[in-house]
Amino acid sequence: MRFSARGHDVSVVDNFSRRRWHVQHSTDSLTPIGSLADRIEAWREISGADIRSFVGSIEDADFLDQVIAETLPEAIVHYGEQPSAPYSMKSRETAVETQYTNVIGTLNVLFAIRDRVPDCHLVKLGTMGEYGTPNIDIEEGFIEIEHKGRKDTLPFPKMPGSLYHLSKVHDSHNIQFACRVWGLRSTDLNQGVVYGIETEESAQDERLITRFDYDEYFGTVLNRFCVQAVIGHPLTVYGEGGQTRGFLNIRDTIQCVELAVDNPGELGEYRVFNQFTEQFSVTELAELVRRSGEELGYEVSVRSFPNPRIEAERHYYNAVNTKLIDLGLKPHHLGEELVRSMLAIIARYKDRVIQRAILPRTQWKPGELEGELEQTQQTRPG
Amino acid sequence: MRFSARGHDVSVVDNFSRRRWHVQHSTDSLTPIGSLADRIEAWREISGADIRSFVGSIEDADFLDQVIAETLPEAIVHYGEQPSAPYSMKSRETAVETQYTNVIGTLNVLFAIRDRVPDCHLVKLGTMGEYGTPNIDIEEGFIEIEHKGRKDTLPFPKMPGSLYHLSKVHDSHNIQFACRVWGLRSTDLNQGVVYGIETEESAQDERLITRFDYDEYFGTVLNRFCVQAVIGHPLTVYGEGGQTRGFLNIRDTIQCVELAVDNPGELGEYRVFNQFTEQFSVTELAELVRRSGEELGYEVSVRSFPNPRIEAERHYYNAVNTKLIDLGLKPHHLGEELVRSMLAIIARYKDRVIQRAILPRTQWKPGELEGELEQTQQTRPG
Repeated sequence: MRFSARGHDVSVVDNFSRRRWHVQHSTDSLTPIGSLADRIEAWREISGADIRSFVGSIEDADFLDQVIAETLPEAIVHYGEQPSAPYSMKSRETAVETQYTNVIGTLNVLFAIRDRVPDCHLVKLGTMGEYGTPNIDIEEGFIEIEHKGRKDTLPFPKMPGSLYHLSKVHDSHNIQFACRVWGLRSTDLNQGVVYGIETEESAQDERLITRFDYDEYFGTVLNRFCVQAVIGHPLTVYGEGGQTRGFLNIRDTIQCVELAVDNPGELGEYRVFNQFTEQFSVTELAELVRRSGEELGYEVSVRSFPNPRIEAERHYYNAVNTKLIDLGLKPHHLGEELVRSMLAIIARYKDRVIQRAILPRTQWKPGELEGELEQTQQTRPG
Repeated sequence: MRFSARGHDVSVVDNFSRRRWHVQHSTDSLTPIGSLADRIEAWREISGADIRSFVGSIEDADFLDQVIAETLPEAIVHYGEQPSAPYSMKSRETAVETQYTNVIGTLNVLFAIRDRVPDCHLVKLGTMGEYGTPNIDIEEGFIEIEHKGRKDTLPFPKMPGSLYHLSKVHDSHNIQFACRVWGLRSTDLNQGVVYGIETEESAQDERLITRFDYDEYFGTVLNRFCVQAVIGHPLTVYGEGGQTRGFLNIRDTIQCVELAVDNPGELGEYRVFNQFTEQFSVTELAELVRRSGEELGYEVSVRSFPNPRIEAERHYYNAVNTKLIDLGLKPHHLGEELVRSMLAIIARYKDRVIQRAILPRTQWKPGELEGELEQTQQTRPG
């Protein structure tokens, strides 16, 4: 919608995998997201602009190749991946599905660009989670290393925390190679954790509303905390809550993608932008939601839950994020006002909340918590 | 055969993919390798020991899981990957096949170990090609980085040179994660380029002979040069020939695998051994083969061919390889005597050489050489 509103000729490729995964878990978006055709129709009515849609999967190389040959895009914004860490850790089947969908799908995108539109700019959604939590500052994709008296600038070493995050590391290596060897150009947006509900465009009409996930698999931490506050569930802090990450407002993700597309790199260039605006620990977020909720009259408690993930709960974290700022990103900062506005929107859809989606069930190491997770499931408030 | 000879209870899993790929290209091993059943039978006759075989693919998770559940291995030596860089660069289909076979196959191995034999030691064949040719010394898997006043030991940054080498980088990340999160143990053998024909075991009887590939896809550089010398074809140096890599004798690869298996790491440990014994440039190898061949009366010419790969042809290269030496590896060094013995064995099978396999056809960047490669195909000596 953002690019369409700016006068670009936009096509969308969708295989509705997120909707399929929700059906599989008997969960759903909090917001009542319309069908693709309905949303495109509403957008046409409101903006006068048409968005073309292609229904199919990027894992289907021939389908994708045909779409690219037909549309000849100048830029591809690649959001077509399985984006959930817990989903990737659920079972062998979901792990394989995740790496297959993400790695093979992206390979197909790279070949289609090489063969059909070699000048096209690939804007790929990466994740800050590719880096993990090293004990040194995180740079934007590359780091100059001095070693035994010699120097080189090399890809930043990766220590990702799930099989999903690993799939993105694999993608990054594949895409960088395609730029180096085939002369393609790409911007890898290593995105932080997104929060928020509305974008400039989706807020124009309820029919345009985008999804808001709060379940274990597809909900991100701040969004989940906000839903928990509204329904009176203790905020689910995993372990010590010292896990620190980069965050950004959903409105800023749109800004970032727009900045990347509007400022393509040279042919052969592989750029990495760290796409977040602020860093918070989980405990800081829980506190913020608690304070903001209480101002609105909610009783919000914060509780430490057994951590289903294997991750450091106290660690150094400092990541560079200047490249998008240099291109003109104007961050929406996180504060109580924003959280209060999220709580107000969530309250509107409160009746749609599905309880089973609140607590985590997927353990990074099956058996590790010996029934602790199951216990929390049983004692959850009705 | 080595492990069987040492009294271990050995099972082999094979899907005969290498034989299938040869059939697809109308090429073959120079040595007349027998069927798996014939080789196992011959081994039983000679050694008195039985090797169990399972025919199937590690991409078939259920098959693999059953094999592991049935055999309960203490160690798995994982050689089950598509091992050719040019094959991976041939087309979208072979690229996808390579990354699918290698990444998904290895994921299945990791899940089978986690679920069936969590103490099992995974000895995985990696490649020195994962590192590429950085301008700093290559360490064994990890590097201590000092950055902005802080320090950490992190995975060595990778700049692999083909979609095959990338698949091994992906594997390395996945395996490291499985060790970190599930507590598995693995040794990643980042192997250099192998040369040679015989091992201690295969030399005992012609029925035990192993394959010797010399074609574009599966032949390695020194083996290819030796075949070219015997049939009177100019040695195919790509470009300037300054490409430097680590090399090792096929007898030493067996020694290395044995050392790795006999000295497993702790549970949770992910180790990387750089498995090569000496470094050579392509030009140095060509010179060695020329000298050795001429001593045997062959007329050997060395010719620079347009490089079908995108790679540095002059670069810094210095890789550490002390871990296997520390465990007791006794290298067979490369010299004229060894090359002469290779040439003598090749001469025995000279009539089996298939001409179409000699010159490269696969370009890293299709169209880059504008007919140069095709020209060399046409002017090849009959």
